[in-house]
Amino acid sequence: MSEFEKTDPSKFLSDIIGSSVIVKLQNGINYTGNLQTIDGYMNVVLDNAKECSNGKVVRDYGDVFIRGNNVLYISEA
Amino acid sequence: MSEFEKTDPSKFLSDIIGSSVIVKLQNGINYTGNLQTIDGYMNVVLDNAKECSNGKVVRDYGDVFIRGNNVLYISEA
Amino acid sequence: MSEFEKTDPSKFLSDIIGSSVIVKLQNGINYTGNLQTIDGYMNVVLDNAKECSNGKVVRDYGDVFIRGNNVLYISEA
Amino acid sequence: MSEFEKTDPSKFLSDIIGSSVIVKLQNGINYTGNLQTIDGYMNVVLDNAKECSNGKVVRDYGDVFIRGNNVLYISEA
Amino acid sequence: MSEFEKTDPSKFLSDIIGSSVIVKLQNGINYTGNLQTIDGYMNVVLDNAKECSNGKVVRDYGDVFIRGNNVLYISEA
Amino acid sequence: MSEFEKTDPSKFLSDIIGSSVIVKLQNGINYTGNLQTIDGYMNVVLDNAKECSNGKVVRDYGDVFIRGNNVLYISEA
Amino acid sequence: MSEFEKTDPSKFLSDIIGSSVIVKLQNGINYTGNLQTIDGYMNVVLDNAKECSNGKVVRDYGDVFIRGNNVLYISEA
Repeated sequence: MSEFEKTDPSKFLSDIIGSSVIVKLQNGINYTGNLQTIDGYMNVVLDNAKECSNGKVVRDYGDVFIRGNNVLYISEA
Repeated sequence: MSEFEKTDPSKFLSDIIGSSVIVKLQNGINYTGNLQTIDGYMNVVLDNAKECSNGKVVRDYGDVFIRGNNVLYISEA
Repeated sequence: MSEFEKTDPSKFLSDIIGSSVIVKLQNGINYTGNLQTIDGYMNVVLDNAKECSNGKVVRDYGDVFIRGNNVLYISEA
Repeated sequence: MSEFEKTDPSKFLSDIIGSSVIVKLQNGINYTGNLQTIDGYMNVVLDNAKECSNGKVVRDYGDVFIRGNNVLYISEA
Repeated sequence: MSEFEKTDPSKFLSDIIGSSVIVKLQNGINYTGNLQTIDGYMNVVLDNAKECSNGKVVRDYGDVFIRGNNVLYISEA
Repeated sequence: MSEFEKTDPSKFLSDIIGSSVIVKLQNGINYTGNLQTIDGYMNVVLDNAKECSNGKVVRDYGDVFIRGNNVLYISEA
Repeated sequence: MSEFEKTDPSKFLSDIIGSSVIVKLQNGINYTGNLQTIDGYMNVVLDNAKECSNGKVVRDYGDVFIRGNNVLYISEA
């Protein structure tokens, strides 16, 4: 068993399901929305999702599925 | 079992099979069309597919198979 | 079993074996030809293959094996 | 058994859980914060996280989940 | 079993072992030579190998082992 | 059994644990320090680590964990 | 069993252990030296290793461990 078993970042993600989050992708694009669901590959579904650039909303999405391997970080908005 | 088992983004994707969707790829190209099928690798088949750039259709495809590891996000059109 | 088991994009690819197809790669190059065979890694063999750029044939190949992880999309020509 | 079994870098990471760390990403961005949790994929949760550029704080995050495959290095602040 | 089991691109590659081939890499470099051996990862050994650029030989190699994950396509010369 | 079983590069790495090494990353940055530990993924912990650029020390780290998939090469300093 | 089992590029690599080789990396850098060991991931240890650029030696290494996933090709010097 790896050293880390006693702690698990996915607990953090489970705890923020339903919250308003910022998802930054590796290509620099930010998405905000409510974290509807997330899986072990970091695939994320946001509802009421918006694409932001330099703090301004550039696009509204409603629900959006974001593929996990593009994710850089996820934080609470 | 990971923390996330109780929620699953693939449910969102199953629910929108048959709907009109936007598939954005990592290279920035957008495809719209009806989501015919999708698998666990995010390989996607769209019918009546169009390639869009800056909101204009640049190309019509009919049916197109898009390889999953290029996908950035999928949202309902 | 994932949500998607009931639908499978590879059925689409099997159905177009023998047809004339366009294979676009991640680097932007297009190949046209008859889809001879394809495997689960999206490795593709085209016969009578041509490399196209801006709609013009830039090169004839005869048979060509294209490695799957370069594939962006496959559509019927 | 590989030659390395007797030594294990993850021990180093377990030992610094709770400490103030610097996490540098492949895209050059630095994050500082307290290392809350980390898993075998190097997924990291920092609390009191800040994004720094050229030694200056450019953004405050509170808690942030950083996806492991973007990590370049982790060191104690 | 996937839809494709009945057809297999690796048959094409086995059939051209011993033939003169062109191996194009993702970085755009072309290698010609006789296909000595190839494995399931597309690792390739060419003998009498030459590096070509714009149709001219820029370098002679004798035998060269080319790592599979760099391969874009393989065709008969 | 693969052809290589009789020889194993990881033996080389085990033998230099404790030595002063240079670790070059794919992004061109060099790190020097004492090789404290290394695992099968090439995750490396250096102590007394320094970041060097054009032969000059640009930063002191103390202990640093470097993620294996960024490593280009490791040599004795 | 895949079509290729009867032929195996790793045989070529085993046969050149101890020989003087050129290892070209994906980033274009060439290393020459004696092939000391190599494993199934193409991790390579060269002794008496030199970094070459445009045919000139730019650096001497003694022994160097090069991580396999950076390797473009390996040929006899």
